[in-house]
Amino acid sequence: MRPGMWKSGMAASAILLASGLVAACGDASSETTAPPPSWRPTPVSGAVEPADTIKNAPADAWRAVAPENLLLMDLADGSRVAIELAPDFAPVHVANIRALARAGWWDGAAIYRVQDNYVVQWGVNESKAPLPKGVVKLPPAEYDRALAGLPLRPLGYPDSYAPLAGHLDGWPVAWSPETGRAWLTHCYAMVGAGRDLSPDTGTGGELYAVIGHAPRQLDRNIATVGRVIDGIDTLTPRPRGTGALGFYENRAQDIAIRQVRLAADLPPATRPAYEVMRTDSPSFAAYVTGRANRGGDFFDVPAGGIDICNAPVPTRKKV
Amino acid sequence: MRPGMWKSGMAASAILLASGLVAACGDASSETTAPPPSWRPTPVSGAVEPADTIKNAPADAWRAVAPENLLLMDLADGSRVAIELAPDFAPVHVANIRALARAGWWDGAAIYRVQDNYVVQWGVNESKAPLPKGVVKLPPAEYDRALAGLPLRPLGYPDSYAPLAGHLDGWPVAWSPETGRAWLTHCYAMVGAGRDLSPDTGTGGELYAVIGHAPRQLDRNIATVGRVIDGIDTLTPRPRGTGALGFYENRAQDIAIRQVRLAADLPPATRPAYEVMRTDSPSFAAYVTGRANRGGDFFDVPAGGIDICNAPVPTRKKV
Repeated sequence: MRPGMWKSGMAASAILLASGLVAACGDASSETTAPPPSWRPTPVSGAVEPADTIKNAPADAWRAVAPENLLLMDLADGSRVAIELAPDFAPVHVANIRALARAGWWDGAAIYRVQDNYVVQWGVNESKAPLPKGVVKLPPAEYDRALAGLPLRPLGYPDSYAPLAGHLDGWPVAWSPETGRAWLTHCYAMVGAGRDLSPDTGTGGELYAVIGHAPRQLDRNIATVGRVIDGIDTLTPRPRGTGALGFYENRAQDIAIRQVRLAADLPPATRPAYEVMRTDSPSFAAYVTGRANRGGDFFDVPAGGIDICNAPVPTRKKV
Repeated sequence: MRPGMWKSGMAASAILLASGLVAACGDASSETTAPPPSWRPTPVSGAVEPADTIKNAPADAWRAVAPENLLLMDLADGSRVAIELAPDFAPVHVANIRALARAGWWDGAAIYRVQDNYVVQWGVNESKAPLPKGVVKLPPAEYDRALAGLPLRPLGYPDSYAPLAGHLDGWPVAWSPETGRAWLTHCYAMVGAGRDLSPDTGTGGELYAVIGHAPRQLDRNIATVGRVIDGIDTLTPRPRGTGALGFYENRAQDIAIRQVRLAADLPPATRPAYEVMRTDSPSFAAYVTGRANRGGDFFDVPAGGIDICNAPVPTRKKV
């Protein structure tokens, strides 16, 4: 993946764009007399503390993560990262990732890129090895999907990137009734498939996880294939790469991966089990209200709003 | 600071809140037939690559960071963090921070908290040492300020937390024409003054920097005093604390601070100099348009929108 790469020499239109936006935004000096905004936060006092909502959520407020969708990356240093795959959003890429895991594609590979406030990236470029049997070399651009019929739960607050944002079956989603499309949002800990320039979509052989403020500009521009549900904090503190885009400049800096497996391929006795809160449950609704209206002993002013990436869907490891 | 601390035992209202939000959000199953949203992104093709806008910005598109507002934290490991203070937003807290720096308050202190996707925190609690002369022990709650007359630049896109968001003199700000107040937003790299429970506002003796997705719930709940303009990436990779809220569990884990000084107090020859892009300049308008409409060789679909924390105000070190 090369997010952030750009063709240079487009500066000629800078003034035009600049004046255009200034006009669109109104004269700053007259801003305080601008017409009232179309949205006002409606703070709620006494919302339930999110940790209490999670702690008290009944058993039916949770769904299990299927072993076929649970990707386990074990680093050489002994740490583990657990990723839930999203086959309903990127079926061909997820099928590739399963096939790659079963072929040991990432065993002995490395994390080779850490860009501050952006992504951690790992894997093996497709060009560097023959693809295992069953891996589609040029998957379709699974960047969004049809909206019709999806039981989406609107977050209930404005989104800065899309007409609507909310959740579907435990996943953060944005959508447009106008275009009839829905897509996963690039929130903290979301996982995508690295790619080069279009029409290449990547096979899934190189993956990245978001480690900073949500880079929503990637939405609909790359295949989002899952989410780190455990162990993101073993990825976020890794040394930032000093090369362009945070790439490690020499292989001695690489962070070795011991193996990547699907939970479904581990002996049942050794399989970890995770659950994700059902985003269509009353517990999740209370959780969102609590996140959007923090209170308790510390907070004095509930925001009355929240963005899709600041209400991460609760997950838990079954022990 | 104890963000995230909550009084427990409020779960009784969970169902009421849950059903309330579900009602407010409408029946998810009928969502795709819901009325059209009040906002639609308006993508722009061929926007100028943000790096080019920064590179080509004229001299008058930049303002200098005043040495009185430039706080330099030197860690024992030789790394440096540069913070611009925001006296227009938190004058008493910033005056305290200047007095504390001049008294060597943080010399030999430590970073003692790193909470993943949240904050890095350092300093000395007011209770652990006599306050230097001139430091106000109980500053006013400088959490927001009067909106009237401020030459705010609206970002031009919806905000999930406030009626309006944009910039003022290089700072990310949200505001409400209804309440007549404006406040700094807790974006990545923003710096705040740790506090205990209200009415305590903290003196500035303990500071934190945001290292994850913008925790906007802190807006208007704590004194935001500045922004890391250089060296945030020396804070973000620090080991996450294993104690509650990311506190290091023993002092051996602390990260030592050698000294913290104001640039104004350094010999002129050794003072670093920084500049911040003027947020009322055409260059900044072009930068925001570029960030909201990524293109070039990699991006196929410009978002047509962006949130206040995903368009960080450009800064540069003068050499």
